[in-house]
Amino acid sequence: MTGIGSESVVVLERDREIAIVRLNRPDRLNAFTLEMRDRILEIFDECDADDSVRAIVITGTGRAFCAGADLAAGGDTFVLEKDPNESGAPADSGGEVALRIYRSTKPVIAAINGPSAGVGVTMTLPADIRIASDTAKFGFVFTRRGLVPEACSTWFLPRIVGISTALEWALGGAMVPVADALERGLVREVVPAEQVLPRAIEVARQLTSGTAPVSVALTRAMMWRMLGASGPEVAHGAESIGIYVRGTSDDVKEGVDAFLTKRTPDFPDAVSSGLPNLFE
Amino acid sequence: MTGIGSESVVVLERDREIAIVRLNRPDRLNAFTLEMRDRILEIFDECDADDSVRAIVITGTGRAFCAGADLAAGGDTFVLEKDPNESGAPADSGGEVALRIYRSTKPVIAAINGPSAGVGVTMTLPADIRIASDTAKFGFVFTRRGLVPEACSTWFLPRIVGISTALEWALGGAMVPVADALERGLVREVVPAEQVLPRAIEVARQLTSGTAPVSVALTRAMMWRMLGASGPEVAHGAESIGIYVRGTSDDVKEGVDAFLTKRTPDFPDAVSSGLPNLFE
Amino acid sequence: MTGIGSESVVVLERDREIAIVRLNRPDRLNAFTLEMRDRILEIFDECDADDSVRAIVITGTGRAFCAGADLAAGGDTFVLEKDPNESGAPADSGGEVALRIYRSTKPVIAAINGPSAGVGVTMTLPADIRIASDTAKFGFVFTRRGLVPEACSTWFLPRIVGISTALEWALGGAMVPVADALERGLVREVVPAEQVLPRAIEVARQLTSGTAPVSVALTRAMMWRMLGASGPEVAHGAESIGIYVRGTSDDVKEGVDAFLTKRTPDFPDAVSSGLPNLFE
Repeated sequence: MTGIGSESVVVLERDREIAIVRLNRPDRLNAFTLEMRDRILEIFDECDADDSVRAIVITGTGRAFCAGADLAAGGDTFVLEKDPNESGAPADSGGEVALRIYRSTKPVIAAINGPSAGVGVTMTLPADIRIASDTAKFGFVFTRRGLVPEACSTWFLPRIVGISTALEWALGGAMVPVADALERGLVREVVPAEQVLPRAIEVARQLTSGTAPVSVALTRAMMWRMLGASGPEVAHGAESIGIYVRGTSDDVKEGVDAFLTKRTPDFPDAVSSGLPNLFE
Repeated sequence: MTGIGSESVVVLERDREIAIVRLNRPDRLNAFTLEMRDRILEIFDECDADDSVRAIVITGTGRAFCAGADLAAGGDTFVLEKDPNESGAPADSGGEVALRIYRSTKPVIAAINGPSAGVGVTMTLPADIRIASDTAKFGFVFTRRGLVPEACSTWFLPRIVGISTALEWALGGAMVPVADALERGLVREVVPAEQVLPRAIEVARQLTSGTAPVSVALTRAMMWRMLGASGPEVAHGAESIGIYVRGTSDDVKEGVDAFLTKRTPDFPDAVSSGLPNLFE
Repeated sequence: MTGIGSESVVVLERDREIAIVRLNRPDRLNAFTLEMRDRILEIFDECDADDSVRAIVITGTGRAFCAGADLAAGGDTFVLEKDPNESGAPADSGGEVALRIYRSTKPVIAAINGPSAGVGVTMTLPADIRIASDTAKFGFVFTRRGLVPEACSTWFLPRIVGISTALEWALGGAMVPVADALERGLVREVVPAEQVLPRAIEVARQLTSGTAPVSVALTRAMMWRMLGASGPEVAHGAESIGIYVRGTSDDVKEGVDAFLTKRTPDFPDAVSSGLPNLFE
């Protein structure tokens, strides 16, 4: 495992084909800043462009995952500057991160190594899988600060844990114990703190081993996108294009031949070569 | 706890900041009438306008919660009069109640004190939380009467219990035992009959204690509304407005300061002063 | 039980009011072909038109349910011929089957008698209920073949098992053990292989016994359709029409009278006479 820029507020590391994105302000419990947002957006662009990256694990340095927005500015923390040339409200920074994770061409696993709150929880919702430390807890604290939920969590949360649980947690500004998070489906599994990152990498490899990178990228985009689609007819349109385009690919020849001859496939197609547009 | 209009078909009571809406035709097992619809709509308007109300509990007088539509008119019960000036079908009365609950600015808890059937079940689906007596059961009886489900339940039910369970119950006209309702997520918890109302009030207080009323109202509207939204981009738009507007509010100054100084917040903003529109 | 066309690739059998659709290429583990697609579409049309059919059970002959697409053509299996007069991609054949099941006017139960993979799994997702043999397993193998999921599964799967589970299975090309399928809600129950078909028929009868065929057809269409609707207002529109039209039907007179006089209803209305359009 090699680290790059360990003094950065967000560090990109690698464990072979797995990129590790580490929130890295441990003295501030990895509290979220606009600098962190910018660095996360950059890293996801880098990972999309790098075919040697097959999946992304997000974790935090130290005992916390992310304490939420950095409150160093006190009651003025959420007073946003507005570009005078911009109409409408300035973009919610948590939402910018969430949408970027949502649009990742690589699967994303959150390795939640400790307590998380506010944007520290909501930014993990577009991850495909969440694995938590037994030291984690999840603070949906927005109504306790006079705010509202963000990072697209009003869309993601009810789709992950169900509308009844999402309402209960968000209305009440709940601090959710890790056992409840497991029971309600917010996290896939709970492990001891020191096992969170190794386990997340192991689960990431279950998604990347023996699978075609382009197929994984398309499937991820299709399934998240169809979660908001008005009916199965929409999926039928996208899938018909997908099956048609992929059906003549070198990947499918390799995939079927490898299956029929009982060997491990070696898929030639690359995400960086571009993905077909399935959504027109 | 003080009662107003105890001879009414629906009674509005109070337990401090919690309004209690009591279906009150115990001799008819609280069977639903148009008079009850009208009174429920009025009460929800009153509760929206009254800042001293922080949450609403719906329950029933006597041993049943609500037996469904009053069948005193027999086979003509569902023959609806149509206004000759109205195009289209007359509005389903259960749906009018359901949409009003859906639009409540205060959290709604259903305290289901006994058996419920038809609109007696479906009107509880827009509640944020359902708590049931161990004497409750849930009759999704529409197909057994030659009808179809109503009160917007074809939208709400699959989002609460999942599409497979919703189809099984609704197609089969099931009378669902309370244990199944708990297992499939229709209700949050099951308690002895005499504990249903006290427990619902207790759970309501977990939503109102230490939370900002305006934040709760906005969060409730956002999360329910985003449940039907086409993608996270829609939530990002609404949340960006929400964070921007709330970020400069007196509530957020109070909320952050109270958090940093470890005291209970006292939020100044009032729902009755009007809520920002997040959905344009 | 009488069989028709037992040498066909798909056999239609009957157990009184229950139609049994049997995938019937046991020497090929019921691998899916275009001929099977055509026959399934025909059979569902026949069942819609036949008022003596109240529900449909889909199962397979032999030890497997369906091994997925027949790979006899090897790497060229998914090279689709395109009609030169057709714009866009040719229709995914699995999707054509899935949409036909989705539009069935009769409830559909999948009796998954053994292993299933690819379209063998995804074609069962528009069934209302899935019952599995303890010998079953579920291969979401698309990314392992260089393909993408089909049969509208990118829309159906996350709505049945939740987005997190759907992503994990589909991205990883998972072979899901039957115990996991039960735990995550893909199947309603697991029984010994020889009990799958009898149990599916028994469960089908819970949907058809004492229920009005037209009410069942409308409820099925409403609930599936509202699963993609933008809000409860859409359901209110459809349900208001449904309650208004059904409220004056002979069925509802019979249903209410039978309930009040505690006898089994005998509903006169027939699906083949046409269903009201609730969705305009």
